[in-house]
Amino acid sequence: MNRAMADHIKILAFDVFGTVVDWHQGVMREVRSMNLGVDPDKFALAWRAGYMPAMQKVMSGQLDWTSIDDLHRMILDDLLDTFHVTHLNEGQKRHLNKAWHRLDAWPDAVAGLTRLKSRYTICTLSNGNIGLLANMAKRAALPWDCILSAEVFRKYKPDPATYLGVAQVFDVTPDEVMLVAAHQDDLAHARAAGLRTAYIERPMEYGPSRQKDVSAHPDNTFHAKDLIDLASLLNC
Amino acid sequence: MNRAMADHIKILAFDVFGTVVDWHQGVMREVRSMNLGVDPDKFALAWRAGYMPAMQKVMSGQLDWTSIDDLHRMILDDLLDTFHVTHLNEGQKRHLNKAWHRLDAWPDAVAGLTRLKSRYTICTLSNGNIGLLANMAKRAALPWDCILSAEVFRKYKPDPATYLGVAQVFDVTPDEVMLVAAHQDDLAHARAAGLRTAYIERPMEYGPSRQKDVSAHPDNTFHAKDLIDLASLLNC
Repeated sequence: MNRAMADHIKILAFDVFGTVVDWHQGVMREVRSMNLGVDPDKFALAWRAGYMPAMQKVMSGQLDWTSIDDLHRMILDDLLDTFHVTHLNEGQKRHLNKAWHRLDAWPDAVAGLTRLKSRYTICTLSNGNIGLLANMAKRAALPWDCILSAEVFRKYKPDPATYLGVAQVFDVTPDEVMLVAAHQDDLAHARAAGLRTAYIERPMEYGPSRQKDVSAHPDNTFHAKDLIDLASLLNC
Repeated sequence: MNRAMADHIKILAFDVFGTVVDWHQGVMREVRSMNLGVDPDKFALAWRAGYMPAMQKVMSGQLDWTSIDDLHRMILDDLLDTFHVTHLNEGQKRHLNKAWHRLDAWPDAVAGLTRLKSRYTICTLSNGNIGLLANMAKRAALPWDCILSAEVFRKYKPDPATYLGVAQVFDVTPDEVMLVAAHQDDLAHARAAGLRTAYIERPMEYGPSRQKDVSAHPDNTFHAKDLIDLASLLNC
């Protein structure tokens, strides 16, 4: 089964935050480096927690199209208030906001992607804006064939236009695209749009003290410990 | 002057057809391989000549947004009539239409881009659609940091939204972006939008028997024989 499926799939589209890069450690490191006088773990979690409600405002039409960089900045401005951080100037805020451009890859990511790239077209499918994803890829040496983003489709995941957009860009059928993600909800929406799905365990996504449930869901096409494991499952 | 300018520029955006890849030889090779019984040189030139009028229909609003793959197919269907080619089935026409995905890079391109990438973010800025550019890059090993296309901005070059879109994607000023192209008109429009410009000589773009004027234009920021020469001019 695996071999026939691996042959059928043409395009691997990757969720990025949490799946390919470690946003929790990365944002904590950047927060620490700015000496904000806040708990870096709490600050990172709060910043990430603001992301879904902010995107909802765009998806509901309450906000016009707004990039993740701009949404991150709106959340950051609120958080700096909440955490009583008052000493940053505009340049420092802009620098901190781009913490999300400077996240490190999980240790298996570059090696896994490089193997997967030998057989498949590998692209991002992230809500992150194109510039963010390109800067991140350059810094972390992520070898994408192509950077696709919600920004290309002007819809945020989980809008079906994003998943189907990957198939349209590459002129393939939806079931020739596989979404690779560490989040079951993202994968479920991709399946509903007709894509194949691969779950990646990232038990440490929210930090070592807060391990995630990474149990297998039977509807995923593949379940892999990490991207090197996925490469092996796909005979790369 | 060159050193200060090279330091100021952050992003190199490349025209692709003619500048990075040799469309004339590539399309001729694909036409020959299909045994169409036509003059491959004339067929390639006619296909390329149909490109500007087809884009004009989109730019004028006569056609809704249409990808270059779809415009190429409209032109191809006309050309097959004109050249009295009647024996191709739909699959063969689709394959031939993707000749533009299978163009070879000019011999200096991969080495030049690799050097330029060590210092700059290098991206495409082509009217070609994203899937075309990604397939081309994978086949020809073009090491883009990011594939930008008219498709992202839903405007074709020379609309200023395309040139300025590169600056917006990367959150830099227009004069921190340099367009690299083998076509003076493309460069002139980029300059009008505030970008820096580098001209690349491609005297053989239309074939060895039809050498192009490649004389320098004083308004370009750089004038280079090829992409390796540009890398040297930019101290890469």
